[in-house]
Amino acid sequence: MKTIRIGVLGASGYTGADFVRLAARHPHIEIAALAANTHAGKAMGEVFPHFFMLDLPSLVTWEDVDWTTLDAAVCGLPHGTAQEIIAAIVAANPQIKIIDMSADFRFRNMDVYAAHYGHLHLAPELQSEAAYGLTELNRDAIRKARIIACPGCYPSAALLALVPIAQAGLIDANDIIIDAKSGVSGAGRGLKQNTLFCEAGEGLSPYAVAQHRHAPEIEQEIGAAVGASIKVNFTPHLVPMSRGELCTSHVRLKGASADDLRAHLAETYREEPFVRVAPEGVLPQTQNVRGSNYVQIGVFADRIDGRAIVISVIDNLVKGAAGHALQNLNVAFGIEETTGLMQLPLFP
Amino acid sequence: MKTIRIGVLGASGYTGADFVRLAARHPHIEIAALAANTHAGKAMGEVFPHFFMLDLPSLVTWEDVDWTTLDAAVCGLPHGTAQEIIAAIVAANPQIKIIDMSADFRFRNMDVYAAHYGHLHLAPELQSEAAYGLTELNRDAIRKARIIACPGCYPSAALLALVPIAQAGLIDANDIIIDAKSGVSGAGRGLKQNTLFCEAGEGLSPYAVAQHRHAPEIEQEIGAAVGASIKVNFTPHLVPMSRGELCTSHVRLKGASADDLRAHLAETYREEPFVRVAPEGVLPQTQNVRGSNYVQIGVFADRIDGRAIVISVIDNLVKGAAGHALQNLNVAFGIEETTGLMQLPLFP
Amino acid sequence: MKTIRIGVLGASGYTGADFVRLAARHPHIEIAALAANTHAGKAMGEVFPHFFMLDLPSLVTWEDVDWTTLDAAVCGLPHGTAQEIIAAIVAANPQIKIIDMSADFRFRNMDVYAAHYGHLHLAPELQSEAAYGLTELNRDAIRKARIIACPGCYPSAALLALVPIAQAGLIDANDIIIDAKSGVSGAGRGLKQNTLFCEAGEGLSPYAVAQHRHAPEIEQEIGAAVGASIKVNFTPHLVPMSRGELCTSHVRLKGASADDLRAHLAETYREEPFVRVAPEGVLPQTQNVRGSNYVQIGVFADRIDGRAIVISVIDNLVKGAAGHALQNLNVAFGIEETTGLMQLPLFP
Amino acid sequence: MKTIRIGVLGASGYTGADFVRLAARHPHIEIAALAANTHAGKAMGEVFPHFFMLDLPSLVTWEDVDWTTLDAAVCGLPHGTAQEIIAAIVAANPQIKIIDMSADFRFRNMDVYAAHYGHLHLAPELQSEAAYGLTELNRDAIRKARIIACPGCYPSAALLALVPIAQAGLIDANDIIIDAKSGVSGAGRGLKQNTLFCEAGEGLSPYAVAQHRHAPEIEQEIGAAVGASIKVNFTPHLVPMSRGELCTSHVRLKGASADDLRAHLAETYREEPFVRVAPEGVLPQTQNVRGSNYVQIGVFADRIDGRAIVISVIDNLVKGAAGHALQNLNVAFGIEETTGLMQLPLFP
Repeated sequence: MKTIRIGVLGASGYTGADFVRLAARHPHIEIAALAANTHAGKAMGEVFPHFFMLDLPSLVTWEDVDWTTLDAAVCGLPHGTAQEIIAAIVAANPQIKIIDMSADFRFRNMDVYAAHYGHLHLAPELQSEAAYGLTELNRDAIRKARIIACPGCYPSAALLALVPIAQAGLIDANDIIIDAKSGVSGAGRGLKQNTLFCEAGEGLSPYAVAQHRHAPEIEQEIGAAVGASIKVNFTPHLVPMSRGELCTSHVRLKGASADDLRAHLAETYREEPFVRVAPEGVLPQTQNVRGSNYVQIGVFADRIDGRAIVISVIDNLVKGAAGHALQNLNVAFGIEETTGLMQLPLFP
Repeated sequence: MKTIRIGVLGASGYTGADFVRLAARHPHIEIAALAANTHAGKAMGEVFPHFFMLDLPSLVTWEDVDWTTLDAAVCGLPHGTAQEIIAAIVAANPQIKIIDMSADFRFRNMDVYAAHYGHLHLAPELQSEAAYGLTELNRDAIRKARIIACPGCYPSAALLALVPIAQAGLIDANDIIIDAKSGVSGAGRGLKQNTLFCEAGEGLSPYAVAQHRHAPEIEQEIGAAVGASIKVNFTPHLVPMSRGELCTSHVRLKGASADDLRAHLAETYREEPFVRVAPEGVLPQTQNVRGSNYVQIGVFADRIDGRAIVISVIDNLVKGAAGHALQNLNVAFGIEETTGLMQLPLFP
Repeated sequence: MKTIRIGVLGASGYTGADFVRLAARHPHIEIAALAANTHAGKAMGEVFPHFFMLDLPSLVTWEDVDWTTLDAAVCGLPHGTAQEIIAAIVAANPQIKIIDMSADFRFRNMDVYAAHYGHLHLAPELQSEAAYGLTELNRDAIRKARIIACPGCYPSAALLALVPIAQAGLIDANDIIIDAKSGVSGAGRGLKQNTLFCEAGEGLSPYAVAQHRHAPEIEQEIGAAVGASIKVNFTPHLVPMSRGELCTSHVRLKGASADDLRAHLAETYREEPFVRVAPEGVLPQTQNVRGSNYVQIGVFADRIDGRAIVISVIDNLVKGAAGHALQNLNVAFGIEETTGLMQLPLFP
Repeated sequence: MKTIRIGVLGASGYTGADFVRLAARHPHIEIAALAANTHAGKAMGEVFPHFFMLDLPSLVTWEDVDWTTLDAAVCGLPHGTAQEIIAAIVAANPQIKIIDMSADFRFRNMDVYAAHYGHLHLAPELQSEAAYGLTELNRDAIRKARIIACPGCYPSAALLALVPIAQAGLIDANDIIIDAKSGVSGAGRGLKQNTLFCEAGEGLSPYAVAQHRHAPEIEQEIGAAVGASIKVNFTPHLVPMSRGELCTSHVRLKGASADDLRAHLAETYREEPFVRVAPEGVLPQTQNVRGSNYVQIGVFADRIDGRAIVISVIDNLVKGAAGHALQNLNVAFGIEETTGLMQLPLFP
């Protein structure tokens, strides 16, 4: 098989680094360039000392990469900064595939983007070439798209649990409460007071309550699945752990039981390599997927009649970002989808 | 003021030890006896090395304590084991006050107790002498009761946030979703695989989903407040921190706004020394109350119309157990209620 | 007793905040001013949300404090920035006592200061008015000094364990290896990549090996005790916990045994309220002193003949900074030394 | 290449499970049997929920495994229990290779074993068939041995750093101080109070000071390297993290400099796939090797003349146990040594 030559944008962030971790051991990928403008000139092992054993390209500015020689650009840039750079790269090399881990091409409605990200989109003309990169539910579009907009970490966990049962009419799409919890790496490597060890450690903090940018993304996809405009409750919390994300989705049943939900999800994902529905009574926990691309989903009857609880877990940096991106890259280039992604969870 | 001579039952557990921590510095309490049958004969500093600087009584069996000379028994025994011992103590000394941190005297309906704790109650005749020990909402009964049944940790956090607004008719008591999160000390000091550092660390685990014993306790108190039998969704999660508890209560509004809820709670607790309602936009977090008897409550509008989110935080070992117990002891003996409880939160 | 009116410099840092935590409950202290130039104008509860229950003065610049009306200035400023400000405060109010938690007045030799802190000292004329604030070993000088230079966190832990046995000639002062470990709060609240939760968590990092600024401070004090110039091995490590500091001091015996060391330390600290020498076989651990002003020291025979291991633990923010400072303030103002410092360790 | 059929003994422990994690993705290994007598009859996914995606053999007693059909037994049993079982397996199948992660066959002197493990060895006749499994330093013997006694976790980290420089005469083998730190998984999955989250979290505890069983193992190997009987200081500490081990070795130089040590180690490991010597000034930290089989070693000059500090880090469950065992299995069966072990560290 042909080797895919890639450049990574935002290689000095956690999602960029986790993509490098996976790609460096992928048999068909060559990491040809690592871009990180604020660290240009440094060795990758200086920025991420855990790569001391690798011989990686040094960091450069994205402008210094020759994108015309590459097959794919994998983008781990902050939201809002990716769109212009991607537009430039696509202009320089119309054949290149973009695997974007930022939010920049996730929204079909540019007004929703603008409302939640604080500025008009800068490359709206490229939106039509972007596929929403939730692999299991959008594989065909991903295969063909020029730009693959990988889902946010929370949407990855929430949508895999909720879209099938909403689409099948088993739950009320207008009464979904997603009580979400994430490890601290979801906040990135930027210096913020609330992600210091002493601030985030030994404590639990809700944040962005009812205002998180992943809510409209979840609403877009569930809305599309049910053919209506909906709102969800989305309440994220910061948990004192580095990796892991758990969505506790409290749903109202429509003539179905918790068992029906579980059976429908199990059937939906029967052939999927990375998604598993837990048997009745088995509780998903983030420890079960740490460091891996796996997703575990459990369904539980509520004490309140007519309600159920759906719990889904992922590693936010893997299935919530870098692993999901690599899975999409595999799809886009016709590589067996699990290649480079079969590492088992690291426990303890 | 007269010194209150107390005996502590279950002194080898976390709640017992945290009571000792507070009582040892209380100006009007003498710790006359420490009982822990499985550790009888040991020095307290051997069982809890952080008490190396104290001169405490050695541990004895509860049968070896002369309860007739004591003013109060503070009970940190496991659920189900307290009731017979308390009955024996009360028989030996009818004047003694019982401050019970177990669940044994929290239920007014013995069938509910039996259904959730797995056996018939062994001292039902004492139930009529027990007051539910949620100080802020039941102070008068606590003052007069022979037995004070201190609330569970989760009920302490949930009820202070929910009872006033349910009682005032501001929310629908039949659609309350309590997504709860606790530090690991809530599981006690007993040896269990899931509370090992390597199992609980760096991960988030839901547990006892829709089956936790604190749900019927919460239902009893909210039900009493609204004069109806209700069910709540109660979904607890184990968080990798030692102390702290946070309830995210998703509620349906009844003609009220989130601002109305906040205002009503602020008015309810205006004179209370330990409960504070956060201003709009301020997020409670467990770090804010660690090691203290304080409670912080915040109210937030939901993205879904007609819904709100109420967030309350406590230290599960203090306001959720030992501090709440000491507050009740102060009330029961006519001591200024904040005595021995004014330590500020330990942050970081 | 007269109330001591204090101003706190550097109130937005961890040591400043921990001093406020203690001082706010001290019966003879009034916190009259809180200075933090970068946060001037903010409420303290905005900068430290865990103070939501206190009614504290708002933050101001240090220049906006009227130091002439205050009895003491407690300084939690970063090293190097304290000296000029303290000089100005002393000039404005010659009666004021300075309790300094920075390194600025700890060195008797200005060349040593300059060599390790990178600049000439800016207020050398005040050095003669400063006492080294290791309370247990320098109480008389502290009582009389205008400036009390509280020890660094590591020196507090190391010197209490080593000075008495070095001074008594029981160990070789030229062969002391201090393998030190600290929680992350020792690095302060400033934004640094290595103190992010994701960087410091789930890992152990040595840092500043053989180059840490606390080494010359330790050498100064042990050297003074033995009347010679000495060097120590000082190897600090960053531990994934917020509070706590442990020094494992590997020492070469001079005709003494580990038991002799233990007996001498026990005798030295027999009357001290905050220092305890553990009985043979009892292991000090940071959990035993968390949140408290206590120190625990243990002595162990080595496998290598003629060597011993001395282990000392403190809470780096309390006995390593704010608690030690308050202890010195009590001494300086003739207040019973333990006032405001009797909180027991918070465990778990 | 022929598939190696293995049975794992002690599959319900952390080292057994980590071996399964690696072996399940190894291209030439078939996990034919998983033995764990106390959990016999259970599914592996019940005992270790993070294996929910694997189709593994159920747990059985070791007596129920047909060892005659297997090529290798990998043993993760507790110390003292392995030797009789291994003797029985070898008797049943003389061709089988034993990869033992316990301490049972690490000692060449049975008196040393008896002194430190509390009982006479039960299979001394097999000792002559055992090779000490420190791959990098004993590869030839490992290739030929019937039993491979994988080193303890601490010895793996300490010996790779110390043996080459002791053997070359660069340091004094009689003055080695190993201040060691380990994550909690090193204590295993058994239920012990000191490894509960609330006990080990947010704290640092020395343990087994000068009495740890890994000290005589380290002494044996360094002693053999220098041809003398030696003693080392070995002082372990429990760090609040799940994985990771760091040895800070304080050594006395013999006419060499820190640079000489670093150069000699770099030369020694020049061709080794898993050992890297850090450039001057680069600090090894456990985060750099988490979840991987890599080792990082750094050398630093001391403040005390004639002394140096050697710091080595491993993941205690990988290079300290399961990874080292798999590396030895690869050597023993003539498989390329890095097979199944190339996963990069998981950071953050």
